[in-house]
Amino acid sequence: MAEFNFNDHPHRRFNPLLGEWMLVSPQRSKRPWQGQQEEPDRAERPAYDPTCYLCPGNVRANGEHNPQYTGTFVFDNDFAALQADVPPGDLNVEGLLQAKAESGVGRVICFSPRHDLTLPEMSVEAIRGVVDVWVEQFRELGAQPDINYVQIFENKGFMMGCSNPHPHGQIWAQRHVPGDPAKETIQQEAYFQKHGKTLLADYLALELRTKERVVVENEHFVVLVPFWAAWPYETLVLPRRVVQDITQLTDEERTAFADIIRRLTIRYDNLFQTSFPYSAGLHQRPTDGQEHESWHLHMHFYPPLLRSATVRKFMVGYELLAEAQRDITAEYAAQRLREQPEVHYKASL
Amino acid sequence: MAEFNFNDHPHRRFNPLLGEWMLVSPQRSKRPWQGQQEEPDRAERPAYDPTCYLCPGNVRANGEHNPQYTGTFVFDNDFAALQADVPPGDLNVEGLLQAKAESGVGRVICFSPRHDLTLPEMSVEAIRGVVDVWVEQFRELGAQPDINYVQIFENKGFMMGCSNPHPHGQIWAQRHVPGDPAKETIQQEAYFQKHGKTLLADYLALELRTKERVVVENEHFVVLVPFWAAWPYETLVLPRRVVQDITQLTDEERTAFADIIRRLTIRYDNLFQTSFPYSAGLHQRPTDGQEHESWHLHMHFYPPLLRSATVRKFMVGYELLAEAQRDITAEYAAQRLREQPEVHYKASL
Ligand SMILES: O=P(O)(O)O[C@H]1O[C@H](CO)[C@@H](O)[C@H](O)[C@H]1O
Ligand SMILES: O=P(O)(O)O[C@H]1O[C@H](CO)[C@@H](O)[C@H](O)[C@H]1O
Repeated sequence: MAEFNFNDHPHRRFNPLLGEWMLVSPQRSKRPWQGQQEEPDRAERPAYDPTCYLCPGNVRANGEHNPQYTGTFVFDNDFAALQADVPPGDLNVEGLLQAKAESGVGRVICFSPRHDLTLPEMSVEAIRGVVDVWVEQFRELGAQPDINYVQIFENKGFMMGCSNPHPHGQIWAQRHVPGDPAKETIQQEAYFQKHGKTLLADYLALELRTKERVVVENEHFVVLVPFWAAWPYETLVLPRRVVQDITQLTDEERTAFADIIRRLTIRYDNLFQTSFPYSAGLHQRPTDGQEHESWHLHMHFYPPLLRSATVRKFMVGYELLAEAQRDITAEYAAQRLREQPEVHYKASL
Repeated sequence: MAEFNFNDHPHRRFNPLLGEWMLVSPQRSKRPWQGQQEEPDRAERPAYDPTCYLCPGNVRANGEHNPQYTGTFVFDNDFAALQADVPPGDLNVEGLLQAKAESGVGRVICFSPRHDLTLPEMSVEAIRGVVDVWVEQFRELGAQPDINYVQIFENKGFMMGCSNPHPHGQIWAQRHVPGDPAKETIQQEAYFQKHGKTLLADYLALELRTKERVVVENEHFVVLVPFWAAWPYETLVLPRRVVQDITQLTDEERTAFADIIRRLTIRYDNLFQTSFPYSAGLHQRPTDGQEHESWHLHMHFYPPLLRSATVRKFMVGYELLAEAQRDITAEYAAQRLREQPEVHYKASL
């Protein structure tokens, strides 16, 4: 029998942030695909769309007019999943029917007045404006006594359930710390107790030794395909300096964050010459008043595309019932992203 | 402030099988949808398709000919994610890069020689044939010393990553117990230690008192929308008698299992008058040689459709980064499914 190697043989990898395993089947990338073909998003959009409820000056679902904003614009989601004034409620029938009232806030962040731009098509300066809004929002919401977690995220592309192509993200901030950040808190805390350093600082140092999974770096940030990535081109954006939340970034680091987001998302678009869909979001310390020195701010990108603009990875049957599974290796994905040019493909059209 | 109630106010519910919480936002079902529209599967298919690699007599990717099967047909997946002969491999770099070789078997089960049928369109007798194959396969694979978990599942519909409409399911059987069954083992074990009964037996008894979430029952099985359902029309199929795995079902119970699958999937198809997509699968005791008396066999159905044949629920941004979220309540979903007729809509076309 040949010797085991990660490029040819099925194996499981461990995600230390969640404390969970996933399955890698590199030999399976040769499988032919006769299933669903996605509609690539190659639409030409106008800079302003009179029917868009996010464009400046337009009317929203609740009848309000958006201001004539020129940078970013934040408003309370008209159909938020979370609400501020929820009466207290608690149910526990024999530990089997357990429920608790949840309160919180849902907001929408327009990234730009331009209807036709996405993050990779915006300037570093404009993305820096988005980073600044994330900082302000995290500070404001996190200071509210009944908000203990602030989830900032973006769904990009129809394939990822985004209902409006106008560049925007969301914030869901709530009383209870939700599942994944709660798991990451436990895992990072345990690591910190044992090693006196953050899990992600040690992990980053390890990755920088070989750079096998590193995609792109600047002075303050590194993007890599984590060893335990589940989505084909999943990446992790890490600040070199340990900070628990985005408010702790220096002015220079904020700009570097904008720069690295731009360079990463340009690579994504270039990979399959399409507006690359993804869900992405920040993970930060809970805002429960505790210090959380074990927490290390990071941003996850979870993009579904696998082979082309039209063939995606489905997280279905086995994945929903058993555990996450991927075909191409993290190392291959990192290499593909690394070799992409840093000029957006549309710029040369 | 009004009193808290589950039909109007956001709340979290606890999934005791996984030990995880999820978010329910019932007030959000009024949200308009301008996002992606799915292509409903209303294709008329021939009973035999010469280009289908699953139809009787046809050639598969590896050049083999399928037999002229008349009931079910099982073969080793030509592009399996798991392989039998994987050399041993183990990596652990400071607890941060952890990987282990994984071995196993991937099989495909054709449910019927008819290319144009799906489970809800098959007779109880024909579905019973599928149940019998599940029994045989679980027995055979579970007896192999290096297989400690057998995952039987079906991806139905292109929306759920199914690449061939010919009715079929899969089995992935492997050395390590994957994530969800491992969590369910821990949760059920803890409950059994404490109460001396299985978690799902007590839960079933509780649900049968009010029947608020019960969809359909027969003498040996009950289908319900679990209190903690994440997918809009998610259901849980439970045997009334506690068994750890499918081989323990009596002859009569096997037929009742086929009957309840038929009655549930007909309701699913009738709900939006479409071939209802889903991922579904059995959860059973690990086949590691231990007794697992705390385990209670069950089948999960995870269907993505939310409002119609063309509007699905997206598990994206918040869900991927924080935790599962749903709009309609489990109680509403159960009621909708309960009121569906038990005659397939196509039968009256
Ligand atoms: O095995 P298939 O049908 O080719 O593939 C389908 O089911 C698998 C198991 O859930 C998934 O890993 C794939 O993403 C999905 O497309
Ligand atoms: O809030 P939106 O953009 O209307 O909706 C989108 O993002 C939400 C948060 O991830 C999801 O719950 C929805 O399923 C998705 O369609």
